[in-house]
Amino acid sequence: MPPTLNEIREAAKRIKPYAHRTPVLTNESLNRLVNAQVYLKCENFQKVGAFKFRGACNAVFSLSDEEASYGVSTHSSGNHAQALALAAKLRGVPAYIVMPENAPKVKKEAVAGYGGRITYCKPTLEARESTLAHIAQETGSTVIHPYDNERVIAGQGTAALELLEDVPDLDVMIAPVGGGGLLSGTAIASTEMKKGIRVIAGEPEMADDAFRAMKAGEIIPSVNPQTIADGLLTSLGRITFPIIQGHVEQIVTVSESAIIESMKFVWERAKIVIEPSAAVAIGVLWEKKIDLSGSKVGLILSGGNVDLEKLPWQL
Amino acid sequence: MPPTLNEIREAAKRIKPYAHRTPVLTNESLNRLVNAQVYLKCENFQKVGAFKFRGACNAVFSLSDEEASYGVSTHSSGNHAQALALAAKLRGVPAYIVMPENAPKVKKEAVAGYGGRITYCKPTLEARESTLAHIAQETGSTVIHPYDNERVIAGQGTAALELLEDVPDLDVMIAPVGGGGLLSGTAIASTEMKKGIRVIAGEPEMADDAFRAMKAGEIIPSVNPQTIADGLLTSLGRITFPIIQGHVEQIVTVSESAIIESMKFVWERAKIVIEPSAAVAIGVLWEKKIDLSGSKVGLILSGGNVDLEKLPWQL
Repeated sequence: MPPTLNEIREAAKRIKPYAHRTPVLTNESLNRLVNAQVYLKCENFQKVGAFKFRGACNAVFSLSDEEASYGVSTHSSGNHAQALALAAKLRGVPAYIVMPENAPKVKKEAVAGYGGRITYCKPTLEARESTLAHIAQETGSTVIHPYDNERVIAGQGTAALELLEDVPDLDVMIAPVGGGGLLSGTAIASTEMKKGIRVIAGEPEMADDAFRAMKAGEIIPSVNPQTIADGLLTSLGRITFPIIQGHVEQIVTVSESAIIESMKFVWERAKIVIEPSAAVAIGVLWEKKIDLSGSKVGLILSGGNVDLEKLPWQL
Repeated sequence: MPPTLNEIREAAKRIKPYAHRTPVLTNESLNRLVNAQVYLKCENFQKVGAFKFRGACNAVFSLSDEEASYGVSTHSSGNHAQALALAAKLRGVPAYIVMPENAPKVKKEAVAGYGGRITYCKPTLEARESTLAHIAQETGSTVIHPYDNERVIAGQGTAALELLEDVPDLDVMIAPVGGGGLLSGTAIASTEMKKGIRVIAGEPEMADDAFRAMKAGEIIPSVNPQTIADGLLTSLGRITFPIIQGHVEQIVTVSESAIIESMKFVWERAKIVIEPSAAVAIGVLWEKKIDLSGSKVGLILSGGNVDLEKLPWQL
């Protein structure tokens, strides 16, 4: 069952003591560029540097005391792993994180820094899933999927909820899409809170499974996608796909060069650090495939975790 | 005469329709690092990307209609030139900017983009000053010095004024020092608004004229200083020096490596883009030369104009 607006409101209450209510920024250069009023919801300022903390936090704090006592687990090498580790730490329970042995050192250290208990496995999806299944059985921990999980989706929806509380008369809401957790929560919160709002997603052209799934009417998994938006490599899930099908007007594909230019533009003009996956949402404006002139546009900047030694415009 | 708190309050009213009231951010990693509560006043989000717009705007809008009609002028290759050009544009009067012919293309374009009328000169202080004197006489424009000007100082003081309105119980206020315009305004606003507040400045070790002036009791101009904090190359002026002498507890010198590490830390943890000159204020915390533990610390992040192609940790 997809979460309701009411469940997103409950999630907002549940995570309030732990998550930041992130600021909403505006930028005149960006407004001029698209001839619209754009409101940036800055999840790059969220705990662990990404919206992922909202969903992980809601999932962990939704568990009963008994469930929670056995801990939580997942396989991830990205922001979800850090988010789950921190949420579990805040609840005082263990987080078991399965990571591929070739994950970047900085990500391993970040998860360990938040107290996550890491098990390494071979870098294949099969190894990740079987290792996780084994650990979950051994520990009795609750597996928290990074996006195909109702409580995670409800948590991610709180970003759009806050944005619409701050700017109620938005005409359009834009979010990036990878596995679809953020987009699903955003779509439910937006369409329930504001009648007639247009929900639009940005997706890397090089990882366009959601774009193709919408056309085909069925999930079409990406096969080994290559994009600098490394938070958007995953494909839609059984729970997120129908929500997106029912609530999202359009998926706009964004080229790699538009992602890089959008990212640099935001750094230079808005003076904030966003990651390539967040720039994909800005890329929707950049591509100019849809007419937004005169609109009030909400846009979820999903995160700000980047390697400052390797910036994409310098590669 | 140094500006009074009242003049800073008037400046705040004067620039309110044009300048951003910039947000105040906090960051847990930074707080943990220094064992204090640090409040970052984000002038990197200010118009033209730096606090300089406050002073320029106050100076331009303080002129009588007749004075203003002849325009304003200055010599600068940095943020002050852009700030003055934009302020003049907003008042609908010309800004005559003298720039050295070897100024970076990006800075020339920025000034021209704000409508500044540029005159190029040889890259020496003598050529800059004589060219400016000639232009001021020819046009009848009012010369606005980048820092040694009471109205500019009053304008720069509005950043600290706003910060103390938002967080009234600060124990310490930190700002970077170059020519001393920002520090002077900050010092007056802070000490007048909050009895007993400690005003501390950060200065690059490689351009430490203010540090040496405070020891010597007289202005000691820097000779060809070399630091990546290119907004802090100038020396204290006749107006700023006595204000700083009378109101600032201490100048903390900051090494080049501390500037770079501070800058990278803020980008990585606080997810905001700051320029090296702003990082000099963070460098005061980094150097750990003064004990701030348990204090509430206000800190002016002076600006965010950097060349994203040439980041100091990659040089």
